[in-house]
Amino acid sequence: MSASLFPNPFPLSGLSVIAALADRLPVADPSALSGARARQDSLTKPPGSLGRLEELAVFMAGWRATPRPAIVCAQALVFAGNHGICAQGVNPYPQAVTAQMVATFAAGDAAINQLCRISGADLSVIPLDLDCPTADFTEHSAMSEAECLDALNRGAAAVDMAADILILGEMGIGNSTVAAALCAAVFGGPVAVWVGPGTGSDSAGIARKLAAIEKGLARHRGLDAMATLAALGGREQAALCGAILAARTARIPVILDGFICTAAAAVLHAVDDRLLDHCLVGHASTEPGHRRLLSVLRKRPILDLDMRLGEGSGAALALGIVRAALACHNGMATFADAGVATT
Amino acid sequence: MSASLFPNPFPLSGLSVIAALADRLPVADPSALSGARARQDSLTKPPGSLGRLEELAVFMAGWRATPRPAIVCAQALVFAGNHGICAQGVNPYPQAVTAQMVATFAAGDAAINQLCRISGADLSVIPLDLDCPTADFTEHSAMSEAECLDALNRGAAAVDMAADILILGEMGIGNSTVAAALCAAVFGGPVAVWVGPGTGSDSAGIARKLAAIEKGLARHRGLDAMATLAALGGREQAALCGAILAARTARIPVILDGFICTAAAAVLHAVDDRLLDHCLVGHASTEPGHRRLLSVLRKRPILDLDMRLGEGSGAALALGIVRAALACHNGMATFADAGVATT
Repeated sequence: MSASLFPNPFPLSGLSVIAALADRLPVADPSALSGARARQDSLTKPPGSLGRLEELAVFMAGWRATPRPAIVCAQALVFAGNHGICAQGVNPYPQAVTAQMVATFAAGDAAINQLCRISGADLSVIPLDLDCPTADFTEHSAMSEAECLDALNRGAAAVDMAADILILGEMGIGNSTVAAALCAAVFGGPVAVWVGPGTGSDSAGIARKLAAIEKGLARHRGLDAMATLAALGGREQAALCGAILAARTARIPVILDGFICTAAAAVLHAVDDRLLDHCLVGHASTEPGHRRLLSVLRKRPILDLDMRLGEGSGAALALGIVRAALACHNGMATFADAGVATT
Repeated sequence: MSASLFPNPFPLSGLSVIAALADRLPVADPSALSGARARQDSLTKPPGSLGRLEELAVFMAGWRATPRPAIVCAQALVFAGNHGICAQGVNPYPQAVTAQMVATFAAGDAAINQLCRISGADLSVIPLDLDCPTADFTEHSAMSEAECLDALNRGAAAVDMAADILILGEMGIGNSTVAAALCAAVFGGPVAVWVGPGTGSDSAGIARKLAAIEKGLARHRGLDAMATLAALGGREQAALCGAILAARTARIPVILDGFICTAAAAVLHAVDDRLLDHCLVGHASTEPGHRRLLSVLRKRPILDLDMRLGEGSGAALALGIVRAALACHNGMATFADAGVATT
């Protein structure tokens, strides 16, 4: 509905153009926000008593630019990539698992398949050159600017501009190291606060992750946020950024998943924090860096269920909460309709 | 399936027989628990990475006595009652609102209707003698033992013994005062920690709640937990206790809602903490006493969404999470099925 308000800037011609987008991208519609708030206060409940369900309904109203938003089409996108940093022994699993899990997604057999089915999201899995991992960032830039831009534009192109909400997730052996490297580069401070066990590293594995990230940070200093994404990131991180931006052009709200997905989004936050205004975070991961990251981004997760799977699993689960919020918002009677005393 | 394992003890002949039930009621099935745990560890994900979804699937397996539990029938019960304590000015709304909200439930217009629809629960609302409030507990016992027992048996009789899970909620103007009184009586300590704004009391209203509860506690001292329920509780609190016990006889797991619902269950906990082994708590309410109560009961809520509506709303919302847990448990492939490398 609102896609026409803003000329689609994709494919982007370069990473440097993203900073200028923040001033031009659509924002939440003020009249839809106020209309939705007024409706919430008229429904048959004490004002505010549905808590975050009310906030989520109002948030959806603002981005969909209608006081009575509906989710007719929910899209879920899972981007997969492989990472040269695995050469540093940062992950106990072989990189072949990335493609094996993509095949499992295709067969409908993974957690994300079940969660998308139950929450009513159309899932697409986008493998990004799995046979051609990024470079080892301890020695080279992980991606050239052209490779990074290509992945970003592929992420953007995957977004269904008719969707009412977008669920984002990722899969990539080694990418908790990539996520920690991006956070450390973008936010600074001690690297160790961003490094955790990921898919199952022991303390020696965590030490290797830390050493690899410190080496990478030393090699790639003084870059802006988008150049940092190319130097330390992966294709799925770039694709996630592209999808977030493409969704914004059509006022499609986004639900981010856990640490790795949020860390990719953090690159955009570092460019301009307004770029994530349309993004919710589905859940708090047990990966230790995630809570810190959410605090920095000032995003409160919807769910907190000790999950740490990735694949978009926490975001898909949170979609059910957003659907429930809209069911209440649209389906409840007002006090006037119901003839209930308000004093 | 397991109803036949245990002779249905309802209708109970007296409140005093409940203490003896704890030794005789069914417990979670050990072989189903271990079978479900083994299945979780074989699914295409790092072990433990679905966090509480794994715990919920195993919990359901134990109570449904099968390693692959399903929710075919989810029942939601909302009990409504009126309270003589309202004479003490503990609530800003008139008691007529209880019946008005019951009519709103019947019309399908309230939050709980939308949430049951979206989570697939069959809702029944049971008004309990709304025209005949309990007595003002500052002056009399709120209920006679016979009245309390009758409400308890009516709650038990409302349970569908063919359900796979039971959602519980309540409605009753004044019942946050009743809930706080029960918690203070059962757990002791300063009364003020259990008293909050409820449906919208200001500081003067909260002071009236506190004074009423202290007067009630002074009048009804030295009672056992079930006698405390009669002296300070209400019909919907007794019915909730009856429904919890009846569900247990058929190994039907229960999802409790917020402060008022959990406070009713706390009476059973005070009788014998094993009586709540089959109960989950759907969410943490913003009513301040709820977190303290959850800590005492050692129950971790599934959701934490700043809700404080009652009606079973948080429990119905949490049913969606339990359904998602079972969708993953039953629908995912094992590593062996999927041919994914595990080392």
